[in-house]
Amino acid sequence: MSEAATAQAARAAIGDSEFDRDTAVTLREPGVYDIDLSAGWTIISAVNGGYLLAVLGRALSHALPHSDPFTVSAHYLTASQPGPAVVRTDADEGREVERIRVLASYGDLDALPDDVRTTATPPAIPPMEHCFGPEDGPAPVDGSSAITERLMLKLDPATLGWALGAPSGKGEMRSWFGLADGRDPDPLSLLLAVDALPPTAFELGISGWVPTVELTVHVRCRPAPGPLRVSITTRNLAGGFLEEDAEVWDSADRLVAQSRQLARVRLS
Amino acid sequence: MSEAATAQAARAAIGDSEFDRDTAVTLREPGVYDIDLSAGWTIISAVNGGYLLAVLGRALSHALPHSDPFTVSAHYLTASQPGPAVVRTDADEGREVERIRVLASYGDLDALPDDVRTTATPPAIPPMEHCFGPEDGPAPVDGSSAITERLMLKLDPATLGWALGAPSGKGEMRSWFGLADGRDPDPLSLLLAVDALPPTAFELGISGWVPTVELTVHVRCRPAPGPLRVSITTRNLAGGFLEEDAEVWDSADRLVAQSRQLARVRLS
Repeated sequence: MSEAATAQAARAAIGDSEFDRDTAVTLREPGVYDIDLSAGWTIISAVNGGYLLAVLGRALSHALPHSDPFTVSAHYLTASQPGPAVVRTDADEGREVERIRVLASYGDLDALPDDVRTTATPPAIPPMEHCFGPEDGPAPVDGSSAITERLMLKLDPATLGWALGAPSGKGEMRSWFGLADGRDPDPLSLLLAVDALPPTAFELGISGWVPTVELTVHVRCRPAPGPLRVSITTRNLAGGFLEEDAEVWDSADRLVAQSRQLARVRLS
Repeated sequence: MSEAATAQAARAAIGDSEFDRDTAVTLREPGVYDIDLSAGWTIISAVNGGYLLAVLGRALSHALPHSDPFTVSAHYLTASQPGPAVVRTDADEGREVERIRVLASYGDLDALPDDVRTTATPPAIPPMEHCFGPEDGPAPVDGSSAITERLMLKLDPATLGWALGAPSGKGEMRSWFGLADGRDPDPLSLLLAVDALPPTAFELGISGWVPTVELTVHVRCRPAPGPLRVSITTRNLAGGFLEEDAEVWDSADRLVAQSRQLARVRLS
């Protein structure tokens, strides 16, 4: 039996294991925690990113009224080394009127190398003239919404069952996407494109509000002029939450953005 | 021709379109921007989340030395309404020794409803005794790393080609995962599980350091005791970046966590 298997048999308990000891934080003052980052979780010479995330997660478990992380987004600024470190938390329970908070990394897309070794392929969306938008029928969304006037959306009929009262049961939504006034896409409008389609929940037979809890967008390439294709999939609807994974493709068949969001859903 | 199509023909220019006007921010003082959130981008009664993200993205474009978003993670605290709003930016160029910054939403996993309507299925990983860990051969990673001593990793042979000098060319990595001392998983250790496997880049024939830029984890369910199965896929390697999408499954066949990270890769 290997060492790991022997240890597995001994079964350290949650709260009293190496992982717990090495992620334990010490309260210095309200919201500020000290930790000695363990050299036991290094990969080559840097501290593993998942271990770091667990350390911050534990500090937040202490600092917040609830102890379970639902969604954690981390941006890694520089490589971490073992040794003393400080965790500063800033608890915001949303009691104020703050609506949204972001963490972002910016750069120069034009400075990136040209290599493309993607295995992803553009979504199979029929030509635009075979797709349908809000203007092609009675408003498919209850209470016609202003945003539909701003957008050029042409939905793949294969993901439009919900509008006809026959949702497919698959968590998929695909559409051509543009701005109604024909403005070409740029990195900023990609941030809009990933959250502009009807919720995949509609195709899962769920109607109503699907508020986003967390949304992360990766902009991978400056988009070429012309309409975009957006494909969104949901694989896991459980516990009153679902994820929406979006891919955005440009007219040059480049995958220009990927996003994932966690959204709440009310099951009736 | 529909109204949208007419407008599409007219072709508003980047910088002079409805989207640009409605996401324009006004500098109030360094790092603080005012905006009048347009009622034109509402869905039902709330402002669309993608429009909001574009507004914050534009403010950051002004506040930062680079104008292109690479990755933006947003947490939505409360629904936004049209009207005056303030965007506060905090530019950190990583010149200090800050290593990592997170945004997180916490809650009580045990309070979530029991519904499971997932279409995702557990990864097809062979039984643990047919999988291989670092202890089963010469250390497969150059410069044996401390973290391998902390973990119980048993990799699917189908994703181990890289260790034998024959990477599959597919961006996939699958493994059984546990802590070496047998501690059972909990929500915090899931934060570790999503970033503990060898990089998918290895199976794409790329070796060396693949530093994480951004990592978001969604914890979807409290994990049952016993080993986890982790499946990671990469679909898009381009421009010197790749994404890693992880799913973590527990011994009860529940999808307990999903994550996505953006990582840099050095192509040789």
